[in-house]
Amino acid sequence: MAQDKFIGLIAGISYIQDADQLEKYSTDSSGYEAALPCIVVRPVTTDEVVRVVNACSDCHLGYTIQGGLTGLAGGARPDKGDVVISLELMNKIEEIDTIGGTVVVQAGVVLEDIQNAVQESGWYFPLDLGARGSCQIGGNISTNAGGNKVFRYGTTRELVLGLEVVLPDGTVLNMLNRVIKNNTGLDLKHLFIGTEGRYGIVTRACLRLFPKPEARFSALTGLNSFNDVTLLLKEARGKVAELSSFEVMWDNYLLKASQSINKPAPFNGQYPIYVLLEVEGGVEGLEEKFNRFLERQLESGLVADVIIPQSEEQAKAIWKIRDASGETMAKISPAVAFDIGIPLKNMQTFIEETINALEEQYPTAVNLLFGHLGDGNLHLTTGCLTPEQLLPVEELVYKLTGKYNGSITAEHGIGRIKKPFLSVSRSAEQIKVMQNIRKLFNVNDLQNKARVID
Amino acid sequence: MAQDKFIGLIAGISYIQDADQLEKYSTDSSGYEAALPCIVVRPVTTDEVVRVVNACSDCHLGYTIQGGLTGLAGGARPDKGDVVISLELMNKIEEIDTIGGTVVVQAGVVLEDIQNAVQESGWYFPLDLGARGSCQIGGNISTNAGGNKVFRYGTTRELVLGLEVVLPDGTVLNMLNRVIKNNTGLDLKHLFIGTEGRYGIVTRACLRLFPKPEARFSALTGLNSFNDVTLLLKEARGKVAELSSFEVMWDNYLLKASQSINKPAPFNGQYPIYVLLEVEGGVEGLEEKFNRFLERQLESGLVADVIIPQSEEQAKAIWKIRDASGETMAKISPAVAFDIGIPLKNMQTFIEETINALEEQYPTAVNLLFGHLGDGNLHLTTGCLTPEQLLPVEELVYKLTGKYNGSITAEHGIGRIKKPFLSVSRSAEQIKVMQNIRKLFNVNDLQNKARVID
Ligand SMILES: Cc1cc2nc3c(=O)[nH]c(=O)nc-3n(C[C@H](O)[C@H](O)[C@H](O)COP(=O)(O)OP(=O)(O)OC[C@H]3O[C@@H](n4cnc5c(N)ncnc54)[C@H](O)[C@@H]3O)c2cc1C
Ligand SMILES: Cc1cc2nc3c(=O)[nH]c(=O)nc-3n(C[C@H](O)[C@H](O)[C@H](O)COP(=O)(O)OP(=O)(O)OC[C@H]3O[C@@H](n4cnc5c(N)ncnc54)[C@H](O)[C@@H]3O)c2cc1C
Repeated sequence: MAQDKFIGLIAGISYIQDADQLEKYSTDSSGYEAALPCIVVRPVTTDEVVRVVNACSDCHLGYTIQGGLTGLAGGARPDKGDVVISLELMNKIEEIDTIGGTVVVQAGVVLEDIQNAVQESGWYFPLDLGARGSCQIGGNISTNAGGNKVFRYGTTRELVLGLEVVLPDGTVLNMLNRVIKNNTGLDLKHLFIGTEGRYGIVTRACLRLFPKPEARFSALTGLNSFNDVTLLLKEARGKVAELSSFEVMWDNYLLKASQSINKPAPFNGQYPIYVLLEVEGGVEGLEEKFNRFLERQLESGLVADVIIPQSEEQAKAIWKIRDASGETMAKISPAVAFDIGIPLKNMQTFIEETINALEEQYPTAVNLLFGHLGDGNLHLTTGCLTPEQLLPVEELVYKLTGKYNGSITAEHGIGRIKKPFLSVSRSAEQIKVMQNIRKLFNVNDLQNKARVID
Repeated sequence: MAQDKFIGLIAGISYIQDADQLEKYSTDSSGYEAALPCIVVRPVTTDEVVRVVNACSDCHLGYTIQGGLTGLAGGARPDKGDVVISLELMNKIEEIDTIGGTVVVQAGVVLEDIQNAVQESGWYFPLDLGARGSCQIGGNISTNAGGNKVFRYGTTRELVLGLEVVLPDGTVLNMLNRVIKNNTGLDLKHLFIGTEGRYGIVTRACLRLFPKPEARFSALTGLNSFNDVTLLLKEARGKVAELSSFEVMWDNYLLKASQSINKPAPFNGQYPIYVLLEVEGGVEGLEEKFNRFLERQLESGLVADVIIPQSEEQAKAIWKIRDASGETMAKISPAVAFDIGIPLKNMQTFIEETINALEEQYPTAVNLLFGHLGDGNLHLTTGCLTPEQLLPVEELVYKLTGKYNGSITAEHGIGRIKKPFLSVSRSAEQIKVMQNIRKLFNVNDLQNKARVID
């Protein structure tokens, strides 16, 4: 009945109600148990989004916002019977400004489509992640996605100049700012970046572009200790402004990942820790500069060994190991993939204490370590567990994360999955403020209910 | 009476009530008419800030937060009879993390003291502005200060990892995050960055550091058109990752500024527009790279002429012209100094239309143009006006700013001075949200009343 009224209210807007087709919208990439929505509505304009939101309010129907469903926190998985609002048809790239270096897009544009379109205009959008082919910019914004180049260009937050957002009460906030500096009071866009659809629906965005790099070079280095890694990071940041990635892999990850993609481990996996560096920028002198820098590190002994790929293929082969986390995890399932942030100076102690505790309590488990170390972001994967061990392993690791002033999620967000652990990273006072703001925007709690914050 | 009770409540906290000494706290650097507070309270700890805030609430006394009083928007100027809460005694640098590259400071630390302290540890805090010797980091955060290096390192917002804030109801929000990526829901610190003390008092901050640059080089270039400036910007961003400043001066500014500091104008002021570039980074190869880049631009004709300083003194002499805006403005007083943001692609048209309108309506006025063009930030100074002309000149310029999707303040903030013009840059819907959030945090409107937003 409410549903009949709802369908009347959204007349003219594309929707799906066929049970077969609804399946596709029943969960995200987190592995969270699926649940069927009652309907999937697919607006193509901001006005249509407003109409759908208002119809949900009028009929008091709970609704879930969906981007590309690559999220890893269960945020886009509907409650059973929810209305799903999918942004997938709002996929227009509206304007590329080749003078100022900005692009205005609808929220449903797939990340890779933005990358390609601006590249054709001689510009570069540096947000990049494994899910680029299906995640949407609206999802990236709502999860404040990170990826491999945060180190140089920042997270999605730093790449967003302006947003258009539809609030749960149907208000449209047009904040499509196009300038880098705009100090006219509260910068409201931050309420919608990284808040996973709890406060509003992102409908359009103005993004910051960079000149397209002329060249890109990588190198894999083997080091003797974590301490050397922190020293190398400072050296590289200070001396190589073109540095765009600083990815760390511990020996256990490097070995398992190489194995999982049937490749021999670089350096036979003989070093305890590895750093994959990448530089990008103007071609003139860049390769020489990067090689000279690496030589100096070899000379000083900070780096024990280095592989400089001699072709783009060789570079890709090395990156493949770094990117093989999915394949590697599949081989040690059931596993928990942590995505935590730890202050660099606590990292070594945190790792020692955590791995010791895990090895003691779960002697048959496999613990793999890698991360975007330049950002203090550690991906620990603990696998070969029994299903019953998953929760206690999470509890163990998050407890230590809290002890070392860490963040329980550096990249992927809270969603449904990490909601029970929110208080590890946020104080009671902060949680109260987050709730008050939820109540201000999302008064009836119909939108993305039960995710992130109550 | 309320005052006696108040003084009882803050027993043990440093305060000033002597009329002579109160003068110093009666306005900021905006030229806004002074008003004497009834008392200046100077807490030294966060707990003391809480006690003062609670005492103001209990006695229903309005209060104004003060940092270094270098603000240019009237935000720190008290209402007559206000309590002033000055952060000047909260001036401790608490912890420099030389591994992760972070520093934790109290809000009242003077910017230059932070710069110096971290420099001694081999690190670099890149926020820099003319007021460095007296502005406080708490003031920088509350105004989201910009400066000369935004282009490379971002505004203050991008340099703040975490904050501690005291809310008007006395709640302490400890958000002293130390990691770059932390996606645990709403990133609350953004509510207090650039909001000029309307929502809370910043008491401590964790700041992001960069390795100390080994070398720094500048060059002044003369160009033939604004279009060439936008092309040079893209070239420089793409080819010189070490680029840290891109400051543009139009001929009228260059001439007047040189004159105001009694120096001959570089290039005799023969070009219509000038760009001052600066690079900073590792010393090896940097000077050669920068010079080679400049040569290429001369060869291609994008740059008409270049001055490469042969010593640090010569470099300073050039920067002095860029930094002489205060002296220059004093010579053409009464004047209005605009601090607007305009999308780069609209800049030329905006300038033409604005200058034409000003010249037509105020034929004897002097209009000087310079700016942090890399950020779309234009400092237009219109001088030799009569006092009666100031307001209509503001109205004229802000109207055109709105027309070209600009921001009425890129750097300095709204405060009291630009509050009447807020609606040029923010929609009615945005203003309503800003007000609702003010009501949520600053319920009784005792804190920094009548600034930014009602
Ligand atoms: C192979 C793979 C690699 C990955 N690598 C990374 C990585 O390196 N770094 C990283 O940070 N993440 C990574 N992720 C996680 C994921 O890709 C990101 O979180 C991505 O940003 C999600 O985008 P999406 O469009 O798929 O969002 P969805 O999964 O559809 O939704 C994510 C959340 O945002 C909300 N949402 C979606 N669109 C909107 C909108 N328009 N308005 C408001 N709310 C909205 C949803 O309700 C949900 O809560 C990876 C995922 C996979 C599968
Ligand atoms: C010579 C000169 C050059 C300048 N150059 C620049 C420039 O290049 N870029 C730029 O952006 N600005 C510039 N400014 C403006 C000014 O320096 C900045 O706005 C600075 O950040 C203000 O810091 P302050 O400590 O003096 O703040 P104040 O003037 O004391 O206060 C500014 C505002 O912040 C509030 N506030 C202060 N401290 C706190 C706190 N701890 N918690 C909450 N609210 C607080 C005040 O109530 C007020 O509303 C310049 C000013 C001068 C005089």
